[in-house]
Amino acid sequence: MGRTLCGAHSRGYGLSVISIVELINNVSLDKVGREMYRLVSELYPICRSITGEGVRQTLEIIKKRIPLVTHEVPTGTKVFDWTVPKEWNIKDAYIKNPKGEKIVDLKKSSLHVVSYSLPIHRVMRLNELREHVFTMADRPDWIPYRTAYFKEAWGFCMSHKQMMALEEGEYEVLIDSSLEEGHLTYGELVIGGRTSDEVLISTHVCHPSLCNDNLSGIALATGLAHYLATLTLRYSYRFLFLPSTIGSITWLSQNERTLPRIQHGLVLACVGDSGKTTYKRSRRGNAEIDKAVVHVLRHSGAEFDVIDFVPYGYDERQFCSPGFNLPVGCLMRTPHGCYPEYHTSADGLNFVQPAALADSFSKCLSALSVLERNAAYVNLNPKCEPQLGRRGIFRSYSERSNGADNEMALLWVLNLSDGNHSLLDIAERSGLKFDVIRNAADLLTEHGLLKQ
Amino acid sequence: MGRTLCGAHSRGYGLSVISIVELINNVSLDKVGREMYRLVSELYPICRSITGEGVRQTLEIIKKRIPLVTHEVPTGTKVFDWTVPKEWNIKDAYIKNPKGEKIVDLKKSSLHVVSYSLPIHRVMRLNELREHVFTMADRPDWIPYRTAYFKEAWGFCMSHKQMMALEEGEYEVLIDSSLEEGHLTYGELVIGGRTSDEVLISTHVCHPSLCNDNLSGIALATGLAHYLATLTLRYSYRFLFLPSTIGSITWLSQNERTLPRIQHGLVLACVGDSGKTTYKRSRRGNAEIDKAVVHVLRHSGAEFDVIDFVPYGYDERQFCSPGFNLPVGCLMRTPHGCYPEYHTSADGLNFVQPAALADSFSKCLSALSVLERNAAYVNLNPKCEPQLGRRGIFRSYSERSNGADNEMALLWVLNLSDGNHSLLDIAERSGLKFDVIRNAADLLTEHGLLKQ
Amino acid sequence: MGRTLCGAHSRGYGLSVISIVELINNVSLDKVGREMYRLVSELYPICRSITGEGVRQTLEIIKKRIPLVTHEVPTGTKVFDWTVPKEWNIKDAYIKNPKGEKIVDLKKSSLHVVSYSLPIHRVMRLNELREHVFTMADRPDWIPYRTAYFKEAWGFCMSHKQMMALEEGEYEVLIDSSLEEGHLTYGELVIGGRTSDEVLISTHVCHPSLCNDNLSGIALATGLAHYLATLTLRYSYRFLFLPSTIGSITWLSQNERTLPRIQHGLVLACVGDSGKTTYKRSRRGNAEIDKAVVHVLRHSGAEFDVIDFVPYGYDERQFCSPGFNLPVGCLMRTPHGCYPEYHTSADGLNFVQPAALADSFSKCLSALSVLERNAAYVNLNPKCEPQLGRRGIFRSYSERSNGADNEMALLWVLNLSDGNHSLLDIAERSGLKFDVIRNAADLLTEHGLLKQ
Repeated sequence: MGRTLCGAHSRGYGLSVISIVELINNVSLDKVGREMYRLVSELYPICRSITGEGVRQTLEIIKKRIPLVTHEVPTGTKVFDWTVPKEWNIKDAYIKNPKGEKIVDLKKSSLHVVSYSLPIHRVMRLNELREHVFTMADRPDWIPYRTAYFKEAWGFCMSHKQMMALEEGEYEVLIDSSLEEGHLTYGELVIGGRTSDEVLISTHVCHPSLCNDNLSGIALATGLAHYLATLTLRYSYRFLFLPSTIGSITWLSQNERTLPRIQHGLVLACVGDSGKTTYKRSRRGNAEIDKAVVHVLRHSGAEFDVIDFVPYGYDERQFCSPGFNLPVGCLMRTPHGCYPEYHTSADGLNFVQPAALADSFSKCLSALSVLERNAAYVNLNPKCEPQLGRRGIFRSYSERSNGADNEMALLWVLNLSDGNHSLLDIAERSGLKFDVIRNAADLLTEHGLLKQ
Repeated sequence: MGRTLCGAHSRGYGLSVISIVELINNVSLDKVGREMYRLVSELYPICRSITGEGVRQTLEIIKKRIPLVTHEVPTGTKVFDWTVPKEWNIKDAYIKNPKGEKIVDLKKSSLHVVSYSLPIHRVMRLNELREHVFTMADRPDWIPYRTAYFKEAWGFCMSHKQMMALEEGEYEVLIDSSLEEGHLTYGELVIGGRTSDEVLISTHVCHPSLCNDNLSGIALATGLAHYLATLTLRYSYRFLFLPSTIGSITWLSQNERTLPRIQHGLVLACVGDSGKTTYKRSRRGNAEIDKAVVHVLRHSGAEFDVIDFVPYGYDERQFCSPGFNLPVGCLMRTPHGCYPEYHTSADGLNFVQPAALADSFSKCLSALSVLERNAAYVNLNPKCEPQLGRRGIFRSYSERSNGADNEMALLWVLNLSDGNHSLLDIAERSGLKFDVIRNAADLLTEHGLLKQ
Repeated sequence: MGRTLCGAHSRGYGLSVISIVELINNVSLDKVGREMYRLVSELYPICRSITGEGVRQTLEIIKKRIPLVTHEVPTGTKVFDWTVPKEWNIKDAYIKNPKGEKIVDLKKSSLHVVSYSLPIHRVMRLNELREHVFTMADRPDWIPYRTAYFKEAWGFCMSHKQMMALEEGEYEVLIDSSLEEGHLTYGELVIGGRTSDEVLISTHVCHPSLCNDNLSGIALATGLAHYLATLTLRYSYRFLFLPSTIGSITWLSQNERTLPRIQHGLVLACVGDSGKTTYKRSRRGNAEIDKAVVHVLRHSGAEFDVIDFVPYGYDERQFCSPGFNLPVGCLMRTPHGCYPEYHTSADGLNFVQPAALADSFSKCLSALSVLERNAAYVNLNPKCEPQLGRRGIFRSYSERSNGADNEMALLWVLNLSDGNHSLLDIAERSGLKFDVIRNAADLLTEHGLLKQ
């Protein structure tokens, strides 16, 4: 880890240093799935927002697993076209019915209060209260998730069924919140590699008790960081745990000098549901990260979707804004807005599964493994094929009709290693898995037939 | 209207000057359809050919609606590889049967005489007459349309049924025509815009009593000119009413210095039948006019066809010859030769419909509106998204999950306005309508976030 | 034939010199098919390998038809990464059963001995013999084809049925072979054309009694050479009759200075079975040879397959290695490994058909005819269409609605002859046959409207 990674933390686990391929071959996905799900459960009750103690508590819990650095950016700081907002905190919130019974209680669900609600403590009639209550008529049992960032307002969310049952009368309404000068908080971790070229992994930490969006992303990023820190790596990996939008804008604004080092990036969100994996391409459309993820998905044996970049979604919007145009894609399972539980209380602990988290982990790791090991090689014997047989790396050529994938891989690598094709390009052109191609390249390099 | 448009006429209607969008929003398509159909009806009886009084009468009638300039080019004028032919005129033509009854009469249909027939007045037996009679055996009730340009011949056209019923005997045959030194006549109108960059609209005026091919094109061009003349325009519009082939060759030959000004062009033909709209791309294949028309058709909600350029068809053949390669496409409904009524008496007043003419008008106007308002912009705040919420041009971003097209349009315009994408490109990439994209660009420009 | 073709032989048949089109129009494919099949039959019994008398006898028989030059390259010669191997020859080989009966005899099938088997003459028990016997359990009546190049081994091939019937006991085994310093033998023929630009036709001659793979390729190359030698040609044609892999590597190694002359090339293999034609593209993917062959197949009226380059197959592997990347494709019917008879005794005289050979001949000749006659032209009258009517090369334009392919071809050639489109490009763009396009170009050139 060189000077270029100033301030970054890395490893220190004292674990034996292994390669990403060894990790992939040896890691227990069951165990990793359970670890990630445990983190989701631990973070679930916390009332997070784009600023405040909820984010800090979240980062503290993550720090038990990875050596995250917490950054605090003061309210009022200019970040490009934006300003870091006041810090919002909440201690308590409830509604008491005319009989004095608490019918809504922040302690029961962090979704009950509209995020960034101003403080209030008053008694009011049902009619007035209703104007501040959000429900979902079409999903009468679910509590919706609502925010009032950058507005001055207050409100409650509850199930439609509950609201319909409210009787006329006087209600006591309490929101013991504060909106004051403070900080925007985010977490960062850099795991140093052999080079200062970076892979960016970003995930948003601003949502309250919603599991898929985005405790799943937090858990996956944490899991990846935990395991990558045990490895010998080519790239340095920068993990960001940011409040959505204002967080990535703040980070970009304060780290412009870092950006040229970012070679590849992934935003992680909604990665724990049981749906198929969805990859959203970077704005560039065919960056190496795009090719790597799509390659992994294509060879995964599972259904998947690949969608083109649109300037809507998660923080890839900021990373891919035209002034940066970073090669950052977004890995999801079912995309935001495409499942009914999205932004409701139904996105709870039953909606995400350890196995789905583990599958997302495995696919990420495979894609990173492609990036780690991709390179363009030059065939040192470009005129005709070399005689592989006499080197013992190829069965005598009379038996090639039984040639398996790895024999074809040798021929593909030799044929296309003219400096214009990376191994990933060769894998795509040949239809073979990247691993098979990379193994062939290693074998040929060992025998002096290929050079990076 | 500057010096570059010397000789061009424009406006003078004394109408209030409005924008093309206001026109689109306020024009009554019913009324425009009826106006165009009325012009078709008025022009229908005239016996037109590539030269002669028929064309002059046609242009005079059009002049009642738009301030066309008539050009007369003398017989014998060299126009590239061609020579302007002798002028052909006809006063009368008939066939009298052995009983002295007029069985064919030019006054009843201008299709009865083969265009450019030499004069004749003789009595002849049926056998001889038959060698000069053209019919359609497979459509026994219809009269075909035939020409003898650049040949020395004469002939009549009639229905097959009529010919089969002719009895033996002596027939009096009269064609009172003349083929003499004279002129080739065409009409031209330039409507000046803010710039001397031009949009060319060309249509052929050489066919006799055939409604779709091409009184429909004449009516549409006239309608467009009539309404465009009331507008504030970016481009100057050049309308050409030409005899097919020899007319466009003549115009090109005499206006080579004008050609660099032509940025976009459309040939209009067969635009009044009830079939779906067909657009034939320019030779360039993906010129801005091609993208604009295809965009409009794709968002029209109606079926349509787009065909690639072929060097056969109407005057786009000349405009797209390799020495010019102008960006000129061709707008049709059912293409020439693809409907049985083509070049027969069945292409009459019932074959074209006011509603179809109006629909073609509307699509043309929409495509021109795209050209008028297309441009490449630069995002002045290219690093991250600007904070649209605080400017009041965007609902607070917590509510974006209800984001409608115009919210997405703002994001698309910001994301792709890097100088490499025109608004039309952004519309195509986003799948949104050009108007929505343009409105977003206007709003962002107003707020100082975008610059052309 | 200039200095650049030093050492090359050509023509000398004393035949009248005709064009490739005249040949295509006049040649009897029946006769050519019979001639090629006769050569297959004549070559069938010979026991060929990558070196030795079998190749020499094969070339001698071909020399009766075309004036091939035989090259002998000594054992031990370094050819890029390879070394020319020892020469292998075989006089006799048999197995006698315990009763002294010859149950396997080289004279009955050249497939019975594993190619490059070391000499042996011993009596052994069935168990030991079996370790040296190759059969096909799933095709119990067929004898497989096996080789032991670059290994030191011996073996026999027989039908599975025969092996299963062998009784215990002592067997006399004889392989009277020799593996000694000698030569690698190949044949070469250059037919001189007007230019020293070359078309390479290569075929492999190392397989014993297998008809489709590759006596068919030998017969087709011989037939093509025989007929091309009677023609006036634009290109020079270089025919190579090579042992597979080591032969092409040897030739490439010794002819590097020739390579810049090679403009197009075809490897011929498996061209006599009754399956559809398959063309494998060159590594470049869209070289002129690729476009020409695909054009011919598309217009052939027969089913066909086009496959992308893969670095596996025949000698195109060497010609398309990255150090050369020559524009060489491969013409086959059913590809190697895609028919069960491949590399077995079932690829015998019944497996190839005179008609299939003739069809492959015809398609090759058509593709070569495209290459011979392809060129980019310039329209000398690029502004508007020229008046074809007055030159008598076009029916008066009023009748164009009946325009046939050759009328459209005139328009296409005029429209696209801007120096950027070859006639083959124009044929592909227009969907018309190359011949129709070329005829149009000739007609226009005759009339001074077009120039190469």
